[in-house]
Amino acid sequence: MITHKKKITVSEIARESGVSPATVSRVLNHPDLVKEDTLRLVEHTMQALGHTPPLKNRTSNSIHQPIIVLNLSDIDNAFYTEIIKGATVSANAHGCYLLINQIPISSHTIADYCNLLKRVNAIGTILLTQLSTELLNRINSLAPVVQCCEFNPDAPFPYISIDDRKAAQHATEHLIACGRNKIAFINGPRSYKYASERKLGFLDALNNADLSCPPNWIIQLPEVNYDMAFAATSQLLNSDNIPNAFFVISDAFAAAVIKAAKRYHYNVPRDIMVVGFDNIPLAYMFSPSITTINQPKFQEGYSACEMVLEIAGNPDASPKSILLDTELIIRESTSFIPNTFK
Amino acid sequence: MITHKKKITVSEIARESGVSPATVSRVLNHPDLVKEDTLRLVEHTMQALGHTPPLKNRTSNSIHQPIIVLNLSDIDNAFYTEIIKGATVSANAHGCYLLINQIPISSHTIADYCNLLKRVNAIGTILLTQLSTELLNRINSLAPVVQCCEFNPDAPFPYISIDDRKAAQHATEHLIACGRNKIAFINGPRSYKYASERKLGFLDALNNADLSCPPNWIIQLPEVNYDMAFAATSQLLNSDNIPNAFFVISDAFAAAVIKAAKRYHYNVPRDIMVVGFDNIPLAYMFSPSITTINQPKFQEGYSACEMVLEIAGNPDASPKSILLDTELIIRESTSFIPNTFK
Repeated sequence: MITHKKKITVSEIARESGVSPATVSRVLNHPDLVKEDTLRLVEHTMQALGHTPPLKNRTSNSIHQPIIVLNLSDIDNAFYTEIIKGATVSANAHGCYLLINQIPISSHTIADYCNLLKRVNAIGTILLTQLSTELLNRINSLAPVVQCCEFNPDAPFPYISIDDRKAAQHATEHLIACGRNKIAFINGPRSYKYASERKLGFLDALNNADLSCPPNWIIQLPEVNYDMAFAATSQLLNSDNIPNAFFVISDAFAAAVIKAAKRYHYNVPRDIMVVGFDNIPLAYMFSPSITTINQPKFQEGYSACEMVLEIAGNPDASPKSILLDTELIIRESTSFIPNTFK
Repeated sequence: MITHKKKITVSEIARESGVSPATVSRVLNHPDLVKEDTLRLVEHTMQALGHTPPLKNRTSNSIHQPIIVLNLSDIDNAFYTEIIKGATVSANAHGCYLLINQIPISSHTIADYCNLLKRVNAIGTILLTQLSTELLNRINSLAPVVQCCEFNPDAPFPYISIDDRKAAQHATEHLIACGRNKIAFINGPRSYKYASERKLGFLDALNNADLSCPPNWIIQLPEVNYDMAFAATSQLLNSDNIPNAFFVISDAFAAAVIKAAKRYHYNVPRDIMVVGFDNIPLAYMFSPSITTINQPKFQEGYSACEMVLEIAGNPDASPKSILLDTELIIRESTSFIPNTFK
């Protein structure tokens, strides 16, 4: 990384320049990302100390375009594509490459992921799954970590996400405002932070309205999987006590509820209303179209990449974590006006 | 790449070993991918010539896990996610990384893409867009090219795809077999090879059945975009001469036809039947579910990566291009049984 002529270390240069060792390392490896005045300061200090490093060319020698790696555990969700698009726009605007890697990171695969970051000399990484502080520390020692959507709230790394609890409460309150009092909830895997938050939001809304829901109306599925949601809804609609609304944590689940309702000859929205989550294209293509919570997916990806670039340009930067706003988008699946004059 | 002690060149080693210069280069850079006997042969020849190259460690030093780059111009299509999953499974099974990059490759961005391949020392690349022979040659000089789905039939690089013309003919014949004689066609951008092939297949089926279709029933959209297909279908259904079936080149288009038909109070499939293409999850989630042509997406991605690895392991290999089989999957959008006893 640094040529140790005269045994001058990164720490010495850092101390003399009054910047962090990470900044010195950045000057040596990715000068393109360092502010002009910081760059000059560190270069002058190195010269003063008699150090002549093999400085990389700061001009646009694009072979040195920095690489940012975005990791996701499963690309099979339309939700991720907008995030990737946002991150790609940010990376390209800064002359960087965004590369997407699909390895589910765990204690078994962490070495692979770390090796990948070394292999491409990544200047940072965007992670879309919640990892333990230990795993995050290992990754961050190689490339600055920014968490996106899912995050570990106890780890000292910035994240960009939404307020899942508030969004879920908003969605459920909409169903209550539509006059629904028997609301079921289909949730995703317990291991996800969003799943526990959205459940709390759902219960907040019920509690505020003095409503309750039988335990078997809170369905916790092990995957975000259309078929499982279809089966679970069918079972519920084939029982004696039937809900008149569903709040579900994905638009694919909402599609499954609508299909199962049709199967049992219930009309959506008249008999059963549904609110989904994410606002993927399916939600407005579907028939009836699906009322849902819009996640600002593009913004999440874009801002996550901007944060990576901020840290890469100044390792002393500590960008604040951000919770972006969600919106309720009302479509046909909750747009039933009862004919009170009938 | 090679240390020229005693001025021994790659060509000399290749000539002496009886293998191609590319194989020698592979031995030097990615010995993990070279067959054991070829590796020994080349190493012995190098020793005999007095060449002691800085050989990379063949044992499992995972920092040298090779990288394959998959490029696509737009990740915003559920069609691609299965391809990526297939390619990832193949790459991981061989101890390689698959990285996905979303740069639309053109004469403006080719330098960027080539730099990326150099930057990560890619052992091969999977391309999902049709490029000119000139651009393909430039990329192939850096990393072996395998084309997937879209391909340039005139370029000397292997591809894995489907027979679009035959599949489109099959889809249209299904509508004719269902008794439909007024069939409209919604196609994608002319620049895509699949678009011209599927149009030919559509016309083949009409010709074989002595059917014709007015020019304004062949709709060529500039993007695979749901809203455009919805607008185009609405215009057609709001005219005097109305088709009783649609063959369309994507499942999102089929969803748009169904939504537009409902808007104009036509029943699908009774009044209007629809066949889509690709078999993305939307097709079976939709209501009514969409009859479609299944593309073996996972297989396409998997086989494309296997081909890259075959060439990377033996640059003299010339894997044959493959056209995989498609299937017609019949769902509700064409499952109308007329009540002839009424």
